[in-house]
Amino acid sequence: MKDMTPLDQYEVGYDIPAKPGMDEADIQTPCLVLDLDALERNIKKMGDWAKAHGMRHRVHGKMHKSVDVAKMQEELGGACGVCCQKVSEAEAFARGGIKDVLVSNQVRDPAKIDRLARIPKLGARAICCVDDLANVPDLSAAAVKHGTQIECLVEIDCGAGRCGVTSTPEVVALAKAIDAAEGLKFAGIQAYQGAMQHLDSYDERKAKIDIAVAMVKDAVDTLKSEGIDCDIVGGGGTGSYYFEGNSGVYNELQCGSYAFMDADYGRILDKDGNRIDQGEWENALFILTSVMSHAKADKAICDAGLKAQSVDSGLPFIFGRDDVKYVKCSDEHGVIADPDGVLKVNDKLRLVPGHCDPTCNVHDWYVGVRGGKVETVWPVTARGLAY
Amino acid sequence: MKDMTPLDQYEVGYDIPAKPGMDEADIQTPCLVLDLDALERNIKKMGDWAKAHGMRHRVHGKMHKSVDVAKMQEELGGACGVCCQKVSEAEAFARGGIKDVLVSNQVRDPAKIDRLARIPKLGARAICCVDDLANVPDLSAAAVKHGTQIECLVEIDCGAGRCGVTSTPEVVALAKAIDAAEGLKFAGIQAYQGAMQHLDSYDERKAKIDIAVAMVKDAVDTLKSEGIDCDIVGGGGTGSYYFEGNSGVYNELQCGSYAFMDADYGRILDKDGNRIDQGEWENALFILTSVMSHAKADKAICDAGLKAQSVDSGLPFIFGRDDVKYVKCSDEHGVIADPDGVLKVNDKLRLVPGHCDPTCNVHDWYVGVRGGKVETVWPVTARGLAY
Repeated sequence: MKDMTPLDQYEVGYDIPAKPGMDEADIQTPCLVLDLDALERNIKKMGDWAKAHGMRHRVHGKMHKSVDVAKMQEELGGACGVCCQKVSEAEAFARGGIKDVLVSNQVRDPAKIDRLARIPKLGARAICCVDDLANVPDLSAAAVKHGTQIECLVEIDCGAGRCGVTSTPEVVALAKAIDAAEGLKFAGIQAYQGAMQHLDSYDERKAKIDIAVAMVKDAVDTLKSEGIDCDIVGGGGTGSYYFEGNSGVYNELQCGSYAFMDADYGRILDKDGNRIDQGEWENALFILTSVMSHAKADKAICDAGLKAQSVDSGLPFIFGRDDVKYVKCSDEHGVIADPDGVLKVNDKLRLVPGHCDPTCNVHDWYVGVRGGKVETVWPVTARGLAY
Repeated sequence: MKDMTPLDQYEVGYDIPAKPGMDEADIQTPCLVLDLDALERNIKKMGDWAKAHGMRHRVHGKMHKSVDVAKMQEELGGACGVCCQKVSEAEAFARGGIKDVLVSNQVRDPAKIDRLARIPKLGARAICCVDDLANVPDLSAAAVKHGTQIECLVEIDCGAGRCGVTSTPEVVALAKAIDAAEGLKFAGIQAYQGAMQHLDSYDERKAKIDIAVAMVKDAVDTLKSEGIDCDIVGGGGTGSYYFEGNSGVYNELQCGSYAFMDADYGRILDKDGNRIDQGEWENALFILTSVMSHAKADKAICDAGLKAQSVDSGLPFIFGRDDVKYVKCSDEHGVIADPDGVLKVNDKLRLVPGHCDPTCNVHDWYVGVRGGKVETVWPVTARGLAY
């Protein structure tokens, strides 16, 4: 992959954790490290699966917030575009050259609607979700003002319990209102069941998705009977893509975490009862951390705490080690149980974060490594773009 | 307070959540908002307390990572300098004009030690902590190389269970090694009891600090008997400063959270059994969030999720409201129970974050408001400077 960002202006340590060509041992910690071999295999594998099952894959860019990773997903994984959750992320992806961008979320603030309507001027298709009739005239007015088109998916809440409508009549009313509004185009259905992705049991996940698929099928069939086609029927995550992909109803997947993996996702089980990080997907994302104190014989203190990760879904685990364990996290410190005293100050460890999305969001850089060497350093392009 | 950062280059929404002069209602969300009146009162109150008790106050800059807030703490609160946890933070504060900077942490990586030794060239006193004899020659060599002086505090682990030595003989041996090393100066003791700050009960906190004070007193007295004086005996946080401040042993406080407050600290009780956010300190830090979906009658979805805060210490609460409640947090969404359906799309709410330090660390800007108007917009100066 071509490195897209000029790094000459940055100094290692002061501005950036590493530069291409450095030994992995010299990377400044704490920072995010990507195992490029594992990342490429994950991306290719999911791309191949989608292709084999006749599905488009609109990769979820809110996970990595990186134009470089999204481009790799297009090139190696055949991704048809990205989804993201913020207008600011959509702008970052569009400016970075992604041509098909879905904000898989509601856009309600007037200033954000105005920015959304300008995204086609950056060269990208702009799609957003709608769950309220009152949103339609605002989106329409902004598109008309800028002479652009905003495509709209009607969001169905198929179990996540957040945004989205819950009945087919509401879907139909919204679809008709969108298609009647100048500057807008009804593009289909958004139906991501986020609440079930992390259920450990394959059968429990399947039961939840069966409900979702039935809701979506009813909406799609009813729209069809009224002469309204869905270009996109989108949903599916790392814990469910095989259900949506075999449903005969969905046509776009929206997986994110499969590319990086994390500790919380890794724990869920496939249909044979195996953890999905033991064969289905590889850990490609790590927090590289250094031991900074070992004043007690059985305890090492490392430099990756709450400011290097999010622990909302549990603590990280130490990759490839069962002799030491990350047991406690405070603002700047991690406490590592080291019962045999095997660690030394300045030893580096790879942590698999509990939850990749909000962990990536606290970092500014990805350091891509291969064979013990730093190959690429990529910005977390849309980090900090919260609004 | 003078606004230190030129904002002309930034566009509201695209780059920055607000500009001075805007109405609070027009701020782009989610973002951090500071109630400047409350912030100033908190800072002045703690400064007055420290002065009245003959204590210096070295404010903890790792909480806010902001040069602007640190300068306000010097000007209104009489702070003698800052402490922080990373060399990168120390550099940011020194460059911003803070003249006395303690890295209240171990510095072990060779590249970081080299940068620490260069901090005096930025115009600031540079102090760090030491808990291992093996660290002394490395620090010394770097100071000699750059022709500077690094002052060192010996860190005592007085109950936090992280870095630091646990016996007086170790303290004495380290102090002597530091003073014997070229380029270094023994400056005293670092003894912050971080583990007890969040215990609800005043008496339980006092019991823990009594142990810490006894350890520190033994070390200080023993050093004195050997002819070694401690310029700094530092520690104390928002949940304990009155203990250290009245101990007769400590001479520097290191409080951080008092200035902003958060939900987790706010819950602890003062000696009369009152929450400390009900009289002792005011909530000055908020996450401003907007309602973005209300597709279900009893539930509003807001735009502040895990990427706008850290929930390691619990969910945020909604300031000044008991009719609605923040009940669930996912990557980009907060679910708000709204049993009476009082909220409308685009309504703005002020959230008090569970834990201020790692919440500030995900944002790039503080929006300072007073009387419904944006007065200042300050960068989170040292955000992203993890290494």
